[in-house]
Amino acid sequence: MAPTSAKSNDAKAAARAAAQARIRAASARHRSPEDWARAIAAGDRDALSQGITLVESRSAQDRPLAEALLAAALALPQSTVASARIGITGIPGVGKSTFIERLGQTLIAAGHRVAVLAVDPTSQRSHGSLLGDKTRMEHLVREPDAFVRPSPASDALGGVNRATSEAMVLCELAGFDRILVETVGVGQSETAVRQMTDIFMLLLISGAGDDLQGIKRGIMEMADLVVINKADGPLVHAAEQTAKECTGALHLMPPHPHGEPVEVLLASGLEGHGLDAVIAQLARLQAAFEASGWWAAQRTDQLQQRFDALVRDRVLEVALGRDGAQSLWQRLQTEVLHRQISPYAAARIFVNNVDSSK
Amino acid sequence: MAPTSAKSNDAKAAARAAAQARIRAASARHRSPEDWARAIAAGDRDALSQGITLVESRSAQDRPLAEALLAAALALPQSTVASARIGITGIPGVGKSTFIERLGQTLIAAGHRVAVLAVDPTSQRSHGSLLGDKTRMEHLVREPDAFVRPSPASDALGGVNRATSEAMVLCELAGFDRILVETVGVGQSETAVRQMTDIFMLLLISGAGDDLQGIKRGIMEMADLVVINKADGPLVHAAEQTAKECTGALHLMPPHPHGEPVEVLLASGLEGHGLDAVIAQLARLQAAFEASGWWAAQRTDQLQQRFDALVRDRVLEVALGRDGAQSLWQRLQTEVLHRQISPYAAARIFVNNVDSSK
Repeated sequence: MAPTSAKSNDAKAAARAAAQARIRAASARHRSPEDWARAIAAGDRDALSQGITLVESRSAQDRPLAEALLAAALALPQSTVASARIGITGIPGVGKSTFIERLGQTLIAAGHRVAVLAVDPTSQRSHGSLLGDKTRMEHLVREPDAFVRPSPASDALGGVNRATSEAMVLCELAGFDRILVETVGVGQSETAVRQMTDIFMLLLISGAGDDLQGIKRGIMEMADLVVINKADGPLVHAAEQTAKECTGALHLMPPHPHGEPVEVLLASGLEGHGLDAVIAQLARLQAAFEASGWWAAQRTDQLQQRFDALVRDRVLEVALGRDGAQSLWQRLQTEVLHRQISPYAAARIFVNNVDSSK
Repeated sequence: MAPTSAKSNDAKAAARAAAQARIRAASARHRSPEDWARAIAAGDRDALSQGITLVESRSAQDRPLAEALLAAALALPQSTVASARIGITGIPGVGKSTFIERLGQTLIAAGHRVAVLAVDPTSQRSHGSLLGDKTRMEHLVREPDAFVRPSPASDALGGVNRATSEAMVLCELAGFDRILVETVGVGQSETAVRQMTDIFMLLLISGAGDDLQGIKRGIMEMADLVVINKADGPLVHAAEQTAKECTGALHLMPPHPHGEPVEVLLASGLEGHGLDAVIAQLARLQAAFEASGWWAAQRTDQLQQRFDALVRDRVLEVALGRDGAQSLWQRLQTEVLHRQISPYAAARIFVNNVDSSK
């Protein structure tokens, strides 16, 4: 562990205490979860912000209220806003914040209301990026039709995933119809974000080496749209070259299951070039996905998979919470790794010993 | 369901009855699981074959004996043979059986003992391919240093996965040091086979269209080695062209996590060309993986992941086996899909209602 862990633990504890205070203040202000949800639907930004703090909370005691708020939200007609959830990934240095700010402004100019949520599974970075993102998106945060929410403080990916999915529901209730979900592009978080969004966009830049900029294997295949950012000034030619190579690589890959071509576009978040084309392509993809049924089918699949995965997680959590389960798991795993027992026998022994009703 | 299901159910029932008879015969012949395992280690091919039938059995009553046999196998010093497990995938028509037969013969000529296991998750095909594979590998099945096992009759992918992993353990106990695991290349089975092998090989042929022959997205990225098969007669030039395109595609992908280049080789299973080069590359990869620690780390990861996944499956199985659990699951899932409840709340309700100790 990093030597700063004690200090960062202090910071985390302080952040948690502040979150608890916000949740308590909101609970006191709204008489009921229904009241709180109606405030969010009516455009009360504090209610939205506090609601997200509530669903982000990792404290078990906050879950009943969080679920009551979500249930109240889902019961309101405003929660069925026809939103588009757009995942945006790219390694640090690709200019994500500037690009997203510009994309958000362009979407607002086109009549949309834009929420920006960030998923950052690295706890070390989350504290720094909190202010960093706010500063970098300084124009967007001042827009009345934008809502910018920095990374949740949670360091567990499962927690981030849950918090972000639930935050999307609250943003949609508040009338935001374009949800931009930002992720860092170097870890597991892309798969999580891919599984909670309608369209997934990969940002690249030119000249970051021929290993396609450290993008994890498989991320290119998840993209519905690739944007070469920083196509400005002296980098325009290199960006065009990167776009050409990227198009070639995509051409050799099997087609995306949705059947639409994966376009490679050039843009400059800094100068604002190419954003209109990105938005036009997002709209084309949405229209094509809606026409083919892909859009609705993907949302249904995502809900089903999330429910399935969550039940598995919760059931395992309950099993591991039983007396002696953790140490039995450790012991069996060690035996499996030393080839003293097959994984199948080990799993059976674990379940037979841990499950009290067997 | 297919109209032939009644007939195929009859065939399945007959296959199961035959399997039960073989297991009973073997149990009667060997006094104990330890005795059975020693017979396998001593080169008794019937004992090996019956042992695989046992671990393939989907009957719950066979599991204790299967696990006892595996435990006895793992306790013998012969089970620690330094084997290489090689996954081979490619769509039907790519010439897998002919290629594998020739690869097996070449490996035997080089002093190895070769076991061929097939993973075929499509139950419809498994009955047909059973004889088909045997006929097609007619030279290999006659080799004293080869053991060819057709697809298990199980139609559940989880079952195939388990049966194949356990069959590998028994083959290694019998002294087979090269385990070739064949899979069809069109579904989930590649991921399963990738997760149980040391080296994963993708077979392609030329001229099967520019969509890379229906190979599922992501399979190319799993490959440690690509072989363009049927590079013979009038197809040689086209195969060279396909190899060039494939090399280009791989070059644009990020490097494989193990850091070794993914080579594209030409071969003809029919004429026997290129097999030596394939075997040389397999040996090079093995040496590099062993030197870097990738080989051992991958085996450890695979065991750990299998244990983890199996515990999750078994724990969920137990939960779903409780009174009313199936219908509660269905009802909650419907509510999730109709956006009446969040997946998180639904998962909590399921666990709270199903888990008896809560």
